[in-house]
Amino acid sequence: MMNVIIAQSGGPTAAINATLAGVIRGLYGKEEIGTIYGALHGITGVLEEHFLDLSASCRDDEDFLDRLTCTPAMYLGSCRVKMPEPEENKAIYDRIFVTLQKYRVGAFFYIGGNDSMDTITKLSREAERRNCKIRFAGVPKTIDNDLVLTDHTPGYGSAAKYIATSLLEIAHDTYIYDLPCVTIVEIMGRDAGWLTASAALARNTYNITPQLIYLPEVPFHRSAFLEDVRHQLSISKNVIVAVSEGIRDELGVYISAKAKAEDKFGHVQLSGVGKALEELVRREIGTKVRSIELSILQRCAGHVTAGQDLRESGEQGQKAAEWVLEGHTGFMPAIERIADEPYQYRIVERKLAEVANKARGVPREWINEDGNDVTGDFLDYVRPLISGEVDLSWKDGLPMYLPVGHLNHGNNGRR
Amino acid sequence: MMNVIIAQSGGPTAAINATLAGVIRGLYGKEEIGTIYGALHGITGVLEEHFLDLSASCRDDEDFLDRLTCTPAMYLGSCRVKMPEPEENKAIYDRIFVTLQKYRVGAFFYIGGNDSMDTITKLSREAERRNCKIRFAGVPKTIDNDLVLTDHTPGYGSAAKYIATSLLEIAHDTYIYDLPCVTIVEIMGRDAGWLTASAALARNTYNITPQLIYLPEVPFHRSAFLEDVRHQLSISKNVIVAVSEGIRDELGVYISAKAKAEDKFGHVQLSGVGKALEELVRREIGTKVRSIELSILQRCAGHVTAGQDLRESGEQGQKAAEWVLEGHTGFMPAIERIADEPYQYRIVERKLAEVANKARGVPREWINEDGNDVTGDFLDYVRPLISGEVDLSWKDGLPMYLPVGHLNHGNNGRR
Repeated sequence: MMNVIIAQSGGPTAAINATLAGVIRGLYGKEEIGTIYGALHGITGVLEEHFLDLSASCRDDEDFLDRLTCTPAMYLGSCRVKMPEPEENKAIYDRIFVTLQKYRVGAFFYIGGNDSMDTITKLSREAERRNCKIRFAGVPKTIDNDLVLTDHTPGYGSAAKYIATSLLEIAHDTYIYDLPCVTIVEIMGRDAGWLTASAALARNTYNITPQLIYLPEVPFHRSAFLEDVRHQLSISKNVIVAVSEGIRDELGVYISAKAKAEDKFGHVQLSGVGKALEELVRREIGTKVRSIELSILQRCAGHVTAGQDLRESGEQGQKAAEWVLEGHTGFMPAIERIADEPYQYRIVERKLAEVANKARGVPREWINEDGNDVTGDFLDYVRPLISGEVDLSWKDGLPMYLPVGHLNHGNNGRR
Repeated sequence: MMNVIIAQSGGPTAAINATLAGVIRGLYGKEEIGTIYGALHGITGVLEEHFLDLSASCRDDEDFLDRLTCTPAMYLGSCRVKMPEPEENKAIYDRIFVTLQKYRVGAFFYIGGNDSMDTITKLSREAERRNCKIRFAGVPKTIDNDLVLTDHTPGYGSAAKYIATSLLEIAHDTYIYDLPCVTIVEIMGRDAGWLTASAALARNTYNITPQLIYLPEVPFHRSAFLEDVRHQLSISKNVIVAVSEGIRDELGVYISAKAKAEDKFGHVQLSGVGKALEELVRREIGTKVRSIELSILQRCAGHVTAGQDLRESGEQGQKAAEWVLEGHTGFMPAIERIADEPYQYRIVERKLAEVANKARGVPREWINEDGNDVTGDFLDYVRPLISGEVDLSWKDGLPMYLPVGHLNHGNNGRR
């Protein structure tokens, strides 16, 4: 009989709680499993011994896992802690392993993106070095879709669905006037263009927008951009441009209105590329122009998630639990695609060490030659990932999410 | 037997096509009615004789009206034409009335907000002056909810639902970190605070955000704002501020990062108040802060409309058609509320002349004494308006809207 800790880390997605629910589903009620703890605010919850009893939540509320599945952002809270190397700070690892022993923890699940995989890899290696039998699993999530060795990541499909839906609605909004107008939509994704590329899904039989799509995988040339916009204005009055926050010029300098400081992981905080291009179009072309930043709503819009994404997110969580129960450690479940049409996939096991600290962008062959659009192959790839709608419960006109888990526990959330 | 013209004008909403569908429903198949024309791009469609045959659309596609009801933004396109006084430009009125005669038009419906009511009022008066028997009806829409003599306007409920849902999701997103953080959400509404006030609906048993709400109806003091934010940070780490784009200081100067030119109606184009307050908090308080602009998505998000709003929008359109068939002219249908709980209302007739060119803000008694929140009476008012969800059709993961009507007709939309 062993206890288990689950934690979440990194940026929110609309599907990360579906993964948490999946892990719990795979563990709850199994005879080998004692208490399932949720550590609050990622690894800091372990360091500070802030835990929720998730077994009790399952026991007390039979709808807990269903409601958790549909609730956006981290139920357990998050952190942005960069774990040091064990040789740099042995004390922090001592503290973690003492806590894990104190709570009789036999398995630790960390749900997160690239940086979280770094944390869990370090813990897993350190456990091996200490000859400790605790099992460690990383469970993926990131709207950025930039993890390697997986077809796509939990959270990406829902964010892509939100983006494509929003782009389609922005198209309806911008088609109404009979005047030339350029609309620039800034989309997240840091150095990977996956999210921005999904804007192409908004095109249909009557909507040709967004006509231009710029991804960070291809250097951005201001002059070519202006030529592209002028050309599109000669074809249609309504020009919509989807642009990634992470586009850079040939020298690798970010195209943005203002540079912000780097975060702890050395990622530049990006903002304002939409405004920068808006100003450029206004100055050089002089047509009506506006910019829209989809902002954090693209990662937390629980009311427009992809059913396929929530399902796969849960399955990967559940599979991680199964494999841990079989004695596996140091792994991450991943998606291997079998076919596009009809879409088929299976869940496979990857070694954490092969996943952490690597990033995967949109392949060059899925971007057109001019570097201002995606190809049909990309569309075949992304289309199945946004499919399916979720039957959310609403009350008094608003989605019924699960109350944020870490509120009313200790002094988290409120002071 | 008479023909009819319907046109749409002003800014988009997610419910304006529900009103269009309502007007058509009230007319189509009636023996007095010949062809129902849709004028493209508001009054300019009449001036340029750009019409769609809406009777044919009803005949050819039995789902036309249902799909139209759920499609956001103007199916017929819009314009921002300010009609001159008849004595300033007789020629333009001559042209309109000649066209109306040429197409044997017996009734003209204009669906729009404040400025559109000005247009239809002028046309109605001019018809009277010319002793012309054509009937004129204004049918309301505006997310701003600033029309007088009606309880609320079509489009407001859906925008309020989008705003409250987004604020709730932003709250889930911002609760995840255990660090003090201020999030400023900029909301539309020009000089009326109705939309921003609806952000208060996001509060529930576990979510105390947004803690601060600033409306244009009360002068904004930067020092009081900073004091409010500091106070809220002493209570909770996660502070969310909902702020109207139209807030002004005591001298009436807009609080915004940059002032834009006035439009044809003399409305200042507002943008950047969120950024301005973000900078202020960063400089004066120094905590983590970000700003989010809900932008045009709050008026065109067809995927999260209020069922109650679409229903009432359609009913007002249909009632306008009925009254026109009874011989009425120079009027606008409006909502009179009978009760809050359970919500009851009826549709009443207002004289256009009493509605046009007036605006209605949030009453001072629905704003708290400190001017940084709304009262329970406001919540009782707004709650029923966001109720009900719409069973939208989805295909390949995206909402199935009606193709934008004016594309592929003449040279509109595409050149």
